[in-house]
Amino acid sequence: MNRYESDLLLIPGPTPMPPAVMRALSEPAHGHRTPQFSKNLESVTGRLKEVFRTESDVIVLASSGTGGMEAAIANAHSPGDKILVVEIGAFGRRWAEIAEGYGLEVARLEVEWGKAADPAAVDEALASSGAGSIAFTHNETSTGVTNPTQAILEVANKHGALSIIDAISGLMASELPMDEWGADIVVGGSQKAFAIPPGLAFVALSDRAWKAVESATSPTYYFDLMAMRKSLEKWTTAYTGATTLVRALDVALELLLADGLEGSIETHRRRGEAVRAGIDAMGLKLFSDPAHASDSVTAVLPPDGVDPDAMRKDLAQRFSIHMAGGQKDLKGKIFRIAHLGVIEPYQLLGGLACLEIVLRAQGHTAFEPGAGVAAASQILGG
Amino acid sequence: MNRYESDLLLIPGPTPMPPAVMRALSEPAHGHRTPQFSKNLESVTGRLKEVFRTESDVIVLASSGTGGMEAAIANAHSPGDKILVVEIGAFGRRWAEIAEGYGLEVARLEVEWGKAADPAAVDEALASSGAGSIAFTHNETSTGVTNPTQAILEVANKHGALSIIDAISGLMASELPMDEWGADIVVGGSQKAFAIPPGLAFVALSDRAWKAVESATSPTYYFDLMAMRKSLEKWTTAYTGATTLVRALDVALELLLADGLEGSIETHRRRGEAVRAGIDAMGLKLFSDPAHASDSVTAVLPPDGVDPDAMRKDLAQRFSIHMAGGQKDLKGKIFRIAHLGVIEPYQLLGGLACLEIVLRAQGHTAFEPGAGVAAASQILGG
Repeated sequence: MNRYESDLLLIPGPTPMPPAVMRALSEPAHGHRTPQFSKNLESVTGRLKEVFRTESDVIVLASSGTGGMEAAIANAHSPGDKILVVEIGAFGRRWAEIAEGYGLEVARLEVEWGKAADPAAVDEALASSGAGSIAFTHNETSTGVTNPTQAILEVANKHGALSIIDAISGLMASELPMDEWGADIVVGGSQKAFAIPPGLAFVALSDRAWKAVESATSPTYYFDLMAMRKSLEKWTTAYTGATTLVRALDVALELLLADGLEGSIETHRRRGEAVRAGIDAMGLKLFSDPAHASDSVTAVLPPDGVDPDAMRKDLAQRFSIHMAGGQKDLKGKIFRIAHLGVIEPYQLLGGLACLEIVLRAQGHTAFEPGAGVAAASQILGG
Repeated sequence: MNRYESDLLLIPGPTPMPPAVMRALSEPAHGHRTPQFSKNLESVTGRLKEVFRTESDVIVLASSGTGGMEAAIANAHSPGDKILVVEIGAFGRRWAEIAEGYGLEVARLEVEWGKAADPAAVDEALASSGAGSIAFTHNETSTGVTNPTQAILEVANKHGALSIIDAISGLMASELPMDEWGADIVVGGSQKAFAIPPGLAFVALSDRAWKAVESATSPTYYFDLMAMRKSLEKWTTAYTGATTLVRALDVALELLLADGLEGSIETHRRRGEAVRAGIDAMGLKLFSDPAHASDSVTAVLPPDGVDPDAMRKDLAQRFSIHMAGGQKDLKGKIFRIAHLGVIEPYQLLGGLACLEIVLRAQGHTAFEPGAGVAAASQILGG
């Protein structure tokens, strides 16, 4: 943050927070065994059901998204269970690491980073592995790809496999109607499109998933979803609830859902389209398969001779704009522009204008100045 | 404000406030007869002296800028005193209204709006009127013009006239070294480049001005500068001091002066240049004389057939960006883009990008999309 705290966060979380959220966060913390917290938890649970599009209760965990992923694996499995993990990027790989840690037998469907999973390949992998469950990423931030989640779920359901989805960076930004598409476990995280700080994970389970949880034997204590479900009947938490974060989430969701979930998804869809058009007009290439490009985060190949990390550093130092670099296998090879949460068109267009300046300074001059902004403007202004 | 409070204020005050200022404003209000307030007042007075570039104490009033203007007129004059008012816009005219209210004999030098005062004409007017004092505007927000303040002060001092300057929108954004240029009374306001809310005015007086105050007989109570000077010896205020605003001002000035006053002025100079280049590249014409265009606010003539107020409404409704309209004689004839206070390049460039969209939607298409942003980028990125 610069000294005015006027930085622009175009990273895939934490995302910019509305002042009303900051005000809620600066209220005195009330206790977690109070009617006030129960009221907030009840309200938040109702709003999260709208976001997840499910009739199931959504469990709120005091953890980051990874905690929600661990809760899903640990609660629904027993050691030795077979699981198919679909890896299209760094976060897909995380499913396998967690599952291995719990002694599951992990089959991996490794997809070239930048591409989405092919449902036909998932079909085959489920058949050949005999896995009883499948874990995959809805929106893979590390590669800027959104999986064909509906089609993968159709395949999973055909095989009767329990489906577990990391939707942390995709919820509210792209479609994932949990009940309609027949997903079993969906995991979300607070610091993404929810526009509050890191510290909360959300886990929703279908009736079938709850049955799996009831018979699973993997050890779990802090992330014990059955204990949490029981506590939720009395609108409280099994252990200490993150009271200020829950209150802030309630404030944020009231703002974010004012135009309905569809409004939020449509806003992200246009932003994604605008950034991709802007990138293209700057003579840059998408890293991701355009057919599955994410509307939350755009992964971009740097132009020849430009070090994406040096460029990002320049952007941060000169303009207080933060974009993300490549992770794991993609370190130093791409940069990522997130457009997730509460971001106004003037911020996105201003961010692209400054990206143009920095690209030019780093030697990439093969585009008309202003062209990237103009292309994105045409979509945001249309 | 939109529901996310993520609006961009490109109006000439109130200007965007850094979160640290908002945090200070939300602290409990301490009493105005406390060591805490005295400490804040002492600190703020020191920082304001740096801004005004004066050895004199700067008086902080709990009022808007107009209160500071009234304080200057009332304290330094007696009924029947002759004053020359230089009117280059709506705020110049205000000096005359206040002076007339106090029974002064007002001579007016009326300058065509959009132009700066000509020091030779001021010389002539001072000679012909025999005025003992002269009041004028340093930076006229209503027309986007900065007066040649140094040259006017030379003329005033040649005539021995007491000089009174409305520097409300110019301080910290353009040069006005009070002692070096020999100004007598300089008035500032909090909601401009100071990046705090409306509610404080600042008045600094030269030794000569204090002598005039001591002998003046106009009635004044709330704005009694001698009472305030006496209170300031004990680092307190004559009446209730605006404790939270003073504390917020201290926080703001610490941030704003971190690169020195010159840093702030240079930032505004580049912003002014960038916006003028952007406007030109959009095929728009400056309303103001380019030789005296303000670096705080740019007044622009709308293109043929475009209603500037409809355009501004569109900009606010679609993009949460606020620009100013014309005032008084200029109502409906111009629009004004302020670039005052804490505004990042990405915000200014994003604001111009959205202005391009809205201009195009209103039928002004005689420019290449992105051209305005590109022209401004060249200056901000240079």
